[in-house]
Amino acid sequence: MTKLKWGMIGGGEGSQIGPAHRLGAQADGQFEFAAGALDHRPDVGRDYAQRLGIAADRAYGSWQDMLEGERGREDRVDLVTVATPNATHFEITKAFLEAGFNVLCEKPMTMSVEEGEEIVRVAEASGKVCAVNYCYSAYPMIRQARAMVRAGEIGKVRLVVTSFSHGHHGDATDADNPRVRWRYDPQMAGVSGQFADCGIHALHMASFICDDEVARLSADFASTIPSRVLEDDAMVNFRMTGGTVGRLWTSSVAIGRQHGFDIQVFGETGGLKWFSEHPNQLEYTPVGGRKQIIEKGEGGLHEDAMRLSRVSIAHPEGFPLAVANIYCDLADAIRGEARDSLPNAADGVRSMAAVHGAVSSAQQDGAWVDARPPMFR
Amino acid sequence: MTKLKWGMIGGGEGSQIGPAHRLGAQADGQFEFAAGALDHRPDVGRDYAQRLGIAADRAYGSWQDMLEGERGREDRVDLVTVATPNATHFEITKAFLEAGFNVLCEKPMTMSVEEGEEIVRVAEASGKVCAVNYCYSAYPMIRQARAMVRAGEIGKVRLVVTSFSHGHHGDATDADNPRVRWRYDPQMAGVSGQFADCGIHALHMASFICDDEVARLSADFASTIPSRVLEDDAMVNFRMTGGTVGRLWTSSVAIGRQHGFDIQVFGETGGLKWFSEHPNQLEYTPVGGRKQIIEKGEGGLHEDAMRLSRVSIAHPEGFPLAVANIYCDLADAIRGEARDSLPNAADGVRSMAAVHGAVSSAQQDGAWVDARPPMFR
Amino acid sequence: MTKLKWGMIGGGEGSQIGPAHRLGAQADGQFEFAAGALDHRPDVGRDYAQRLGIAADRAYGSWQDMLEGERGREDRVDLVTVATPNATHFEITKAFLEAGFNVLCEKPMTMSVEEGEEIVRVAEASGKVCAVNYCYSAYPMIRQARAMVRAGEIGKVRLVVTSFSHGHHGDATDADNPRVRWRYDPQMAGVSGQFADCGIHALHMASFICDDEVARLSADFASTIPSRVLEDDAMVNFRMTGGTVGRLWTSSVAIGRQHGFDIQVFGETGGLKWFSEHPNQLEYTPVGGRKQIIEKGEGGLHEDAMRLSRVSIAHPEGFPLAVANIYCDLADAIRGEARDSLPNAADGVRSMAAVHGAVSSAQQDGAWVDARPPMFR
Amino acid sequence: MTKLKWGMIGGGEGSQIGPAHRLGAQADGQFEFAAGALDHRPDVGRDYAQRLGIAADRAYGSWQDMLEGERGREDRVDLVTVATPNATHFEITKAFLEAGFNVLCEKPMTMSVEEGEEIVRVAEASGKVCAVNYCYSAYPMIRQARAMVRAGEIGKVRLVVTSFSHGHHGDATDADNPRVRWRYDPQMAGVSGQFADCGIHALHMASFICDDEVARLSADFASTIPSRVLEDDAMVNFRMTGGTVGRLWTSSVAIGRQHGFDIQVFGETGGLKWFSEHPNQLEYTPVGGRKQIIEKGEGGLHEDAMRLSRVSIAHPEGFPLAVANIYCDLADAIRGEARDSLPNAADGVRSMAAVHGAVSSAQQDGAWVDARPPMFR
Repeated sequence: MTKLKWGMIGGGEGSQIGPAHRLGAQADGQFEFAAGALDHRPDVGRDYAQRLGIAADRAYGSWQDMLEGERGREDRVDLVTVATPNATHFEITKAFLEAGFNVLCEKPMTMSVEEGEEIVRVAEASGKVCAVNYCYSAYPMIRQARAMVRAGEIGKVRLVVTSFSHGHHGDATDADNPRVRWRYDPQMAGVSGQFADCGIHALHMASFICDDEVARLSADFASTIPSRVLEDDAMVNFRMTGGTVGRLWTSSVAIGRQHGFDIQVFGETGGLKWFSEHPNQLEYTPVGGRKQIIEKGEGGLHEDAMRLSRVSIAHPEGFPLAVANIYCDLADAIRGEARDSLPNAADGVRSMAAVHGAVSSAQQDGAWVDARPPMFR
Repeated sequence: MTKLKWGMIGGGEGSQIGPAHRLGAQADGQFEFAAGALDHRPDVGRDYAQRLGIAADRAYGSWQDMLEGERGREDRVDLVTVATPNATHFEITKAFLEAGFNVLCEKPMTMSVEEGEEIVRVAEASGKVCAVNYCYSAYPMIRQARAMVRAGEIGKVRLVVTSFSHGHHGDATDADNPRVRWRYDPQMAGVSGQFADCGIHALHMASFICDDEVARLSADFASTIPSRVLEDDAMVNFRMTGGTVGRLWTSSVAIGRQHGFDIQVFGETGGLKWFSEHPNQLEYTPVGGRKQIIEKGEGGLHEDAMRLSRVSIAHPEGFPLAVANIYCDLADAIRGEARDSLPNAADGVRSMAAVHGAVSSAQQDGAWVDARPPMFR
Repeated sequence: MTKLKWGMIGGGEGSQIGPAHRLGAQADGQFEFAAGALDHRPDVGRDYAQRLGIAADRAYGSWQDMLEGERGREDRVDLVTVATPNATHFEITKAFLEAGFNVLCEKPMTMSVEEGEEIVRVAEASGKVCAVNYCYSAYPMIRQARAMVRAGEIGKVRLVVTSFSHGHHGDATDADNPRVRWRYDPQMAGVSGQFADCGIHALHMASFICDDEVARLSADFASTIPSRVLEDDAMVNFRMTGGTVGRLWTSSVAIGRQHGFDIQVFGETGGLKWFSEHPNQLEYTPVGGRKQIIEKGEGGLHEDAMRLSRVSIAHPEGFPLAVANIYCDLADAIRGEARDSLPNAADGVRSMAAVHGAVSSAQQDGAWVDARPPMFR
Repeated sequence: MTKLKWGMIGGGEGSQIGPAHRLGAQADGQFEFAAGALDHRPDVGRDYAQRLGIAADRAYGSWQDMLEGERGREDRVDLVTVATPNATHFEITKAFLEAGFNVLCEKPMTMSVEEGEEIVRVAEASGKVCAVNYCYSAYPMIRQARAMVRAGEIGKVRLVVTSFSHGHHGDATDADNPRVRWRYDPQMAGVSGQFADCGIHALHMASFICDDEVARLSADFASTIPSRVLEDDAMVNFRMTGGTVGRLWTSSVAIGRQHGFDIQVFGETGGLKWFSEHPNQLEYTPVGGRKQIIEKGEGGLHEDAMRLSRVSIAHPEGFPLAVANIYCDLADAIRGEARDSLPNAADGVRSMAAVHGAVSSAQQDGAWVDARPPMFR
């Protein structure tokens, strides 16, 4: 099987996201890193791309150059990853989709709901793959959880409870550190801080596992460090279309929590629990029965969990390979095997609608608001 | 040291609460079980009391008989425990306080806020000890957590997050079981189901550790099993007087959770975490530092934790001895050594105000309401 | 049901073992603390006993006085607990058995195998209960494990692996502390240090759960703190009569381990795991299946686990109530309901034979030796 | 930086080890997969190599062809990975070293001690890198543990206790499955079963972290499934050159354990604990202090741990990236930056000497034997 050709925009030297995507794309040998516009400083980006092994003529100085350069090639890249600052995702993703490229966009896909709806329309018109990097959903045990829910193994889902709460922004003496401060500054981060950063991963996860969509929500935001304009702690209650009750807590001041992403799903006949720091186990309790530990790689898992397990049971796989799983699905999708587990533009705009809805609710003392983008109402 | 004399109302044969109190009162040899009105059926109660070793003349057929019998004795009981059905707590507690007895009342102390305020007044006028059995607060590591907060070891508390969520009422096919059903029936349980049952333990714990009071709250209630009138799942956001943000989730349909009571406290310079199923460990993380495991019985604990540890480090102590710790504090208080950690009537009425506030908020789609009893506004 | 009368020898003021036994005996209201010789200093012991509520005429100055005083009484104590220094257990236990008392002896029951065999013979001749306080075996989940093995739920046991390793004697700068030093001094501790102190609990547990006896063993002892004559770390491999392979590690220099007692049992069709610091859970994995968490108090446990659970599922019970469980079984046994789970004199002498066998093996570079007392060969 | 060229021998289609190495070599973009002899069936291997993207002229039918083909090229591979059946490791590794290639050999490096010593000599004479794939030692937290020991942070190491015990060969009804059976058949597996398969990983780890070598040992082997000739359970006690006491348990019938590899290291001033199923945490307890959780990626780790962490704190990394870390070190070493953490031929022969020593000891009822290869005595 010939390798697919892959290009990246953003993710320059010193970024954390760049190596994560390069590892994800290349780990399973399905993509060849063929083109890149890795830095907003043209020379820096071209130089770094070449040091990473990209040919000089495909080491671009800007995403516009890359768009021009690649669209005319016979051997154009099969997939473009957009890993630039958040505010630029919309413009770049749109341009590449319109030019007929498959795109993987980092989250958040856009800054506004309107932009998000535009991406959905453009993606649909293009006929291309437009994925959003909700990579946690690609952990094998999350795929297992979703498959169990779909198969009715825990009955109708009554309740989903999730949190994505860490403590890495909990030091007030470090709050002016630019690496931290921007996140709580509306000029740079948009309408929401912690909820837009981490909360939407949890919200997507709830929808993903429950196989349902968030319909309405009520939010309580707090800036526990007073100098912050945007929230560093948020609680969002929600209801899904099918009636499932949801509870989502996200915080960046929860000192002692490290990654802090977990999810619990409670149905009529069973419950599930997963924790991102030990992602290879899934707890399952049938109603009236004992808690069981489901292990990545064990016999009898659902297909979508099984195929994403690279090494045998109890050999842990971690976050970078969850990203790699997104690329596995992308490779399949590009080659024509649809992967309905792949987070897509609709997921992207739903997140944005939830962010704006939560902000609006919080401003109205927790009034319940519609959480759906207009196009999906 | 002469043993104190102890009497019990309710807690008859086959109840779970009776043995818990008898073990708690007698474990450390400070109380002698001297009198009882253990059952609403006079003969049954008298017989059972005598089988438990109580003298015939102090084995009463009703709490009224016990009140009459004991008030006239030279060797009257030093402490009366009220462990009758919830709706009777107010009347009995009030009567015994007015007659000059020290009382330990099971939670909830009353059904209404007005009754709760009445108990506060009566208790104050009596000069007697009136305690409420929020026994989780008597675990040594909870006392340690409170002492750490008081000593400023985690700085000003920004955020407290607690849950008391189990799955033992999650089986819809068992929902008509009378042992379960009454809890969700307003005729029997009052205005609230799960929040009044378990949530108020968590709410008290938040106040207890943070050494602060809940000022206002917003609630989202759900009856995830449709036949239930009262909620089986609730989320309550709150603010404390000092500004601390609070998040409390309580559920009885969280299948796979057993006891399911935990609390996390996040301050300016550190975080704490405790889990009731492994109550002998307390996690502590200083800001910027590593998580540490504090063990019951280790050297250097705060006094209020140290004195309640009976066996050496890492020999676990469990729930019945947390109840016993309440009795230790009661013995001290009765003998004149004030124990400000002992949950009291003010705690009892605050819980009731929070229950009624949460019900009111939930009925108004989560509107923020005052959570304080009028007497403390 | 009339309370049984209970007396104690040793366990004076300031000891840890005294309160543990008093709580254990009194927690469930089956025993009344009626007599005691609590200290080797007659006046001190008599005074302390009276402060604990014992009548003056039964507050004895020595065990000999107590033997004389009690044997002539109509209302003599039903049970004597021997909690004196190790070297005196034999003499006292023997004397009270011969006088027709039921005895609970602290471990080790004796210092030599010969003494142990003597106790077995005396106990048998007396017709009285002679129990040894291997109290860990009385945790409900250990009773469950034993019952599962007996019921064939994990098939024939192939392998048992246990450790009782803590780090509380790991500080060389504290090694001369008398509270620590005596344990490694043959003049005071006998032939073995850590193995005789903690290892025999683990060895008893292996026999108890597997329902089999240790037949032969090979030991490797080390004094990792060089000033110690006796071992502070030991590994013992063994074989049971039925062929089960055993591995036992015990250490007092394992810094970071607190209580550190765990056991794993592997049979033909399943495996079990238990950890003393979280004693209310038992892990069970059927061959080819998933790990399950068995909880104290859950429905469907074996009878011997069920009856020793005082509070409902997931309310933890700890070490002091494991001791109390020994007293529950003693009360039953004294009243005529045989409890074959109660550790007895045969267990006591088997432990002593294992200690002497291990010492002998370690001195011979790990040569395999017979671990059985001569009387059971 | 130009990518290094990498070739592989063995690891054909359907093997588990092949993908693990390909991911490991390519994850960080340092190696280009340039050549391979992937199967003992020439056509199958050539075909598979080309499907994996290798040029036709470097898709070899045998390792001998690859040796001939590559040695004459200007652009010969910089590294050859040997992942063939165990019995062939010696011959292939030796041939490639003699031809001037750098080699990564799967464990066990050889079947005999003599062969192992030969590889050490050949590797030294060649001046090339000869590494052995003890990949667990490349987990960041293991590197941290070793660095802490080297820096004296736990003082002189007194004791190391490790186990690598799983239950995946515990089903007697599956024992004749060829995939399982060969491991216990001396015709195919050599002198040892489980100890040679998993035990030597644990033994290497002990040496690696303690920065010391195993000097002598005593072994107890058991075949708990009677049809097995070789051991499926083993306990090995050992002493290191510096006096450290060692305890190693390995089993394949420990039903309920999944991966089951852990290690505990106890020094004069602290203890460490690590568990392969949650490899991103390292427990550290200073003597007299509290247990601390060290997290992969936290600030202030030792350099050798820091540089092998790809994603930020609490984003888990797993087994495949531990293999990738070996390749990171190999890339550095090939480029001239010596990596003394890289397991090498001396480690390979030491393992083999320990295997043969343990077999000999077990045959002599646990007699202590020299565990060192003659060349290192």
